[in-house]
Amino acid sequence: MPLSVQAMLELVLTTVPRCGESEKVPTSQALGRVLADRAVAPVDLPAFPRSAVDGYALSVADCQGATPEQPVFLPLGAKVLAGQLPAPLGPGGATFVTTGAMLPPGADAVILVERAQVQGNALAVSEPPRPGQHLSRPGEDIRRGRFLFPAGRRLGLPEIAILASLGYGELEVIRRPRVAIFSTGDELVSPGAPLAPAQVHDTNSVILRAAVEAAGGVVTRWGILPDRYPELAEIAAACAGGESDLVVTTGGTGASMLALAGSPVDGLHDLVPGLLAGSGVILNQGVGVVPGKPTAFGRIGPTPVFALAGWPYAVLVTFHLFVAPCLARLGGLPLPAERRLGRFPLGEEVKGEAGFRRYVQVRLEDRGGERFAVPILPPPPPSAARSISLLLEADGYIYLEAGETDRSAGEPVDVYVFPGG
Amino acid sequence: MPLSVQAMLELVLTTVPRCGESEKVPTSQALGRVLADRAVAPVDLPAFPRSAVDGYALSVADCQGATPEQPVFLPLGAKVLAGQLPAPLGPGGATFVTTGAMLPPGADAVILVERAQVQGNALAVSEPPRPGQHLSRPGEDIRRGRFLFPAGRRLGLPEIAILASLGYGELEVIRRPRVAIFSTGDELVSPGAPLAPAQVHDTNSVILRAAVEAAGGVVTRWGILPDRYPELAEIAAACAGGESDLVVTTGGTGASMLALAGSPVDGLHDLVPGLLAGSGVILNQGVGVVPGKPTAFGRIGPTPVFALAGWPYAVLVTFHLFVAPCLARLGGLPLPAERRLGRFPLGEEVKGEAGFRRYVQVRLEDRGGERFAVPILPPPPPSAARSISLLLEADGYIYLEAGETDRSAGEPVDVYVFPGG
Repeated sequence: MPLSVQAMLELVLTTVPRCGESEKVPTSQALGRVLADRAVAPVDLPAFPRSAVDGYALSVADCQGATPEQPVFLPLGAKVLAGQLPAPLGPGGATFVTTGAMLPPGADAVILVERAQVQGNALAVSEPPRPGQHLSRPGEDIRRGRFLFPAGRRLGLPEIAILASLGYGELEVIRRPRVAIFSTGDELVSPGAPLAPAQVHDTNSVILRAAVEAAGGVVTRWGILPDRYPELAEIAAACAGGESDLVVTTGGTGASMLALAGSPVDGLHDLVPGLLAGSGVILNQGVGVVPGKPTAFGRIGPTPVFALAGWPYAVLVTFHLFVAPCLARLGGLPLPAERRLGRFPLGEEVKGEAGFRRYVQVRLEDRGGERFAVPILPPPPPSAARSISLLLEADGYIYLEAGETDRSAGEPVDVYVFPGG
Repeated sequence: MPLSVQAMLELVLTTVPRCGESEKVPTSQALGRVLADRAVAPVDLPAFPRSAVDGYALSVADCQGATPEQPVFLPLGAKVLAGQLPAPLGPGGATFVTTGAMLPPGADAVILVERAQVQGNALAVSEPPRPGQHLSRPGEDIRRGRFLFPAGRRLGLPEIAILASLGYGELEVIRRPRVAIFSTGDELVSPGAPLAPAQVHDTNSVILRAAVEAAGGVVTRWGILPDRYPELAEIAAACAGGESDLVVTTGGTGASMLALAGSPVDGLHDLVPGLLAGSGVILNQGVGVVPGKPTAFGRIGPTPVFALAGWPYAVLVTFHLFVAPCLARLGGLPLPAERRLGRFPLGEEVKGEAGFRRYVQVRLEDRGGERFAVPILPPPPPSAARSISLLLEADGYIYLEAGETDRSAGEPVDVYVFPGG
């Protein structure tokens, strides 16, 4: 019996440790990254008594007894602009300050410029202001030593704003997981290179590179390996010495499934699981999901290795189900959420598959003013006739849980899209 | 009267052209980018007759009359693995082929390895297979010349998979918008550098750099400019010669609002709008949103320029409302969607502000088993006492439309988070 999707995911998440290492990045480039350490305010914010407005700084004590009939006149000193170091306030004086300017020593209130009356070179105060009015005291916004964020906090724009305000030019964040990606197959040629007869373009390393980077990983090696053990040793090499935190391969998984099913495997290749078993350990082989049945997961040394089936559609499904959560765990990120497009009535019946969660591409189609999710079914397996065109025609996918029986036409279903980008 | 949020957004979107230029990127790095041209299948997929399974290739004509009692025996030729160029099928012969292998000339059906009976060096066929069974004909998946995607299609993982399968090593995509970012203010110092008395760290260029890059832009210049026209000329320089597609400044917008309101502006700086008016044109100044009232938008030469208010919270709000949609338009991307966290009852009454859409930070708080959105209110303006700490305490924000009156405690409200990261 293959493992259920849920059991495979649990196996992956319990096997894979959070990456313990961290690195410094400029705060401006830390969006979406994860704090390695707890953050505590290193300074008071504001760091100095600061005007909250454009206005006139003065000492409330100098304004006692001021009335509209008998204003107090305070001679104006030199203006203080933001960034300037102010001279102390002369006795009985006032000073124009801009928003954000440091208050002159001796000032304890600010009168709004819109409400101030200036006569000649003096401010006319017609009632004593409230002490502390329109100014911020040091530490009034955030006090030095205040707890900000726990280790493991994912940084959004508000976090970036707070940490930059407090003077952080760099942040210590969890290192991105490093990933090696290999497509296996003698027939494969990189897209962009010309094909000889019988060759095909390697779609999977391209998908995986894009998907790994979108999921926060860094690709350390990637490319095509032929179906021969000496060259496949590069997979083991990518695991050695902690060079990669994860290795993902595609292809070379079908034969083992046949073997597991007791079928003849005359001349068939079963190379990646074979390498895994030989150089490391297979933790599971075979998952209850269609497409993606032959998916295998293991370890070479400490490094987790996924062996994904070679069909690009299976790569999309199994990356999303197992590899993306694994990357999130390695990078200290929350597990990725599904991206739901909406809920639509099913256009045609879809058959469940006992023991397997089934992923079915759908096209959204207008029928009499209502949008239906119309399944795009490949010919019954084993056939690969629509292997790419079903992605081309699809607007998203639905899935039927392993326990679910058929779903009938008209039944409402949730439609999802693959995340990333 | 300031422009409404909606009118300002329309002004921005009608002023800003889609970036007409494109660039080539490797297909593996094109996720989230936008196709510059329509894409049409350049080749047949598959390119050659291909086995869909592991099995035995043969000619149906050679199997006529086969029955379980009187099987036809087909001598086996050399195996054909994927990627190998097969020799033509000998008359009355069969050949083992792997999934994805090119069929030998002369073969028109494949028998599944699980169902095949091999005796000695011959395949025993006990009933004639269906012509075309378990194989794909050239172009059967996608035919050369088939329309794939229109120009302007945003590339997700399925699009990447399809284009890589068809051999695209690079794609022509819309160039990323180039953005110059300037914080203005004599008091500003980059985070990480030490502060002299009266100086503060420049939060806004850090927020903007992170936000611009998350929105698909490339930052060409960024940094701090003092409040003096000679140095502010760098803003105009960043607009010259098409170096930038967009310029975003923060700070230096308050004085003009006072002037617009008919207040005295003795000694106040109004530098960025002043520069805009002098070197280009102000298209609008003042928007019906709190925070962000003084937001200005204009052009220097052909280059759009945003002058955002200097409060980091206002930068977050106005970036999200106006700059992010502007970047999407420039880059040919769909307008960014709001990121809704959920719907929660309001913890306390919130007052609307006539003529202004009001953004209010909220904290999600458990009260008797239910989560409430509790407003985090700064002291009444003009004060900046909680300018950063309100972001620190918030889990998200709500907003009240300009026409909305107060919302009472217990009323359900939608809570959002700032996108990016």
